[in-house]
Amino acid sequence: MRFQLPTYDLPSGNRQVQLVRRPQGVPLADDFALSSQAVPSPQKGEILVRNLLLSVDPAQRGWASAEANYASPVALGSPMRALAIGVVVESLCPDYQAGDCLYGFFGWQDYAIATPDQIILKVYHPLPLEAQLALFGISGITAYLALTLCGRPQPGHMLVVSTAAGSVGSFVGQLGKSMGCQTIGLTGSDDKVARCLSRYGYDQAINYKTADLGPDLKNRAPKGVDVYFDNTGGPILDTVLRQMNVAGRIVQCGTASVGSWAPTPTGPRNEREIMTRRLTWSGFIVLDHRARYAQAADDMARMALDGTLVYDTHILQGMEQAPQALSLLYSGGNHGKLMIAL
Amino acid sequence: MRFQLPTYDLPSGNRQVQLVRRPQGVPLADDFALSSQAVPSPQKGEILVRNLLLSVDPAQRGWASAEANYASPVALGSPMRALAIGVVVESLCPDYQAGDCLYGFFGWQDYAIATPDQIILKVYHPLPLEAQLALFGISGITAYLALTLCGRPQPGHMLVVSTAAGSVGSFVGQLGKSMGCQTIGLTGSDDKVARCLSRYGYDQAINYKTADLGPDLKNRAPKGVDVYFDNTGGPILDTVLRQMNVAGRIVQCGTASVGSWAPTPTGPRNEREIMTRRLTWSGFIVLDHRARYAQAADDMARMALDGTLVYDTHILQGMEQAPQALSLLYSGGNHGKLMIAL
Repeated sequence: MRFQLPTYDLPSGNRQVQLVRRPQGVPLADDFALSSQAVPSPQKGEILVRNLLLSVDPAQRGWASAEANYASPVALGSPMRALAIGVVVESLCPDYQAGDCLYGFFGWQDYAIATPDQIILKVYHPLPLEAQLALFGISGITAYLALTLCGRPQPGHMLVVSTAAGSVGSFVGQLGKSMGCQTIGLTGSDDKVARCLSRYGYDQAINYKTADLGPDLKNRAPKGVDVYFDNTGGPILDTVLRQMNVAGRIVQCGTASVGSWAPTPTGPRNEREIMTRRLTWSGFIVLDHRARYAQAADDMARMALDGTLVYDTHILQGMEQAPQALSLLYSGGNHGKLMIAL
Repeated sequence: MRFQLPTYDLPSGNRQVQLVRRPQGVPLADDFALSSQAVPSPQKGEILVRNLLLSVDPAQRGWASAEANYASPVALGSPMRALAIGVVVESLCPDYQAGDCLYGFFGWQDYAIATPDQIILKVYHPLPLEAQLALFGISGITAYLALTLCGRPQPGHMLVVSTAAGSVGSFVGQLGKSMGCQTIGLTGSDDKVARCLSRYGYDQAINYKTADLGPDLKNRAPKGVDVYFDNTGGPILDTVLRQMNVAGRIVQCGTASVGSWAPTPTGPRNEREIMTRRLTWSGFIVLDHRARYAQAADDMARMALDGTLVYDTHILQGMEQAPQALSLLYSGGNHGKLMIAL
């Protein structure tokens, strides 16, 4: 997808949302400050990108904190690290040309100077840009790669997904269904149960807060579970694990139901279940699989185009929405992939 | 290996060690009775096998109990199910000829009528028969296949093995070393530590009963553990798991350190470690992998012939030793693979 940017669309300065204070917990608006800079010039090997859509992701909470998680912390006074879709304005890098539309780590700012290691994908599918940000975001790519690489579902398999209506789970359920699985979503409210069934195509859905999960799951999956895509950990995991079939796979993609890991909470020992059921229990983090992003994106775009994959977007307008966007995300106030249009 | 059996070696009756009582816990001599039967005749599709070496295996405890584990229970009054090496006396099955030496489920008896599904391997390597029973037994094949299929060690990897001097662990340590791993054995006595080092070629060994396992392992494997072959479960597993490297593999092959599973004991939750370290934790049971036994046996025989794999045998003489052999095994009174020569 090559863009011809109209010149009037190009701001003359570079507004940035900078991180100015280490957040205590969820980042708040006051942890950030808007500032205006001169538009930078690319050096040899670099490109200048005009951002069009800024992504708002749960992972940004970790990037903003002082403690390195899977990436180094954002320095105070720097533009907040963020994924974004932008278009190349000027390129001194042979791999990219002006007009290329790219998805990468371009930060919460109007313009980014980027090197190839910051670029995740070329954006070229005939889908709206906001669709591509929703599909190719951390959640979508995580869902696709974790399910296919670790879950390895086969037609007819019983797939159970926790946080089934969430940003990752909603894709997992749809992808599993498209691969021929029977799907059961576990989620935390009746509204989300309804959404799992009507919007994300789950065959069945359980509100684990009101159901007696063990017997309910046993009734709905009497032949056992082949793949469990777990985003919760804790007692939900323990329950599903004990209904896994021989040679089943558990994908550990999150542990959202466990409030604190210090001190380490206890639970029933699972090693005997792992052995007797010959399970494979794998941890997944999408950053390990960068070489596979493009193939995942192509496949998800194909499914979005033919209607087998639906996605939801929640678009905020303007850079000034960014500072409070993470609080909105963590309060659950968004209804779809959260992003900011510039 | 084709045998010319001298006729004087062939007993005229078929002595059997029959299971006559369901054992309470470890099978005792009184749970069995010796009986003598006529030598049976094979029907079409069957072979008559003269047993030469009877195997004594921990799995027999499960087969003798009323509760089906991975196989149906042995019927009372039947010859005790057992692996054995024997030679074909008469064949009405096109796949086998008189004189073929075979390893299979031939029971604790002089003669067996067998069909192809009871046969595990042809025995043809230029090694003593007792060596082949030791190498190709459940423990040896389990060690080989669980390590290669689930552990997937690479040269330079740090491999930790629990019950390191045991029937499975002693092979795992040697196989890992032959694949270029650094090896640390965890075992329960100073004698076994010495045996790990002097006999099984471990680079290092720890007596987990006297050591402070966490710090000791950290000292010995400062760069972390890539493959943990676990036969114990419990707190030893919890400790090693927290020293695994990113993308490490845990092979769950036994849970010997956990005394009882009813009610389910508790331990620290491991799901966050699985995720953040991107571990793959797999349960292994050798019966799932029958198609790979022959290749495993060939490779282990090659290593035994070139001296990279040592094995120990403990040979009892005569059928009348069988009834008390399982108590000997479970008391740890054997010093090597336990078997009975006829």
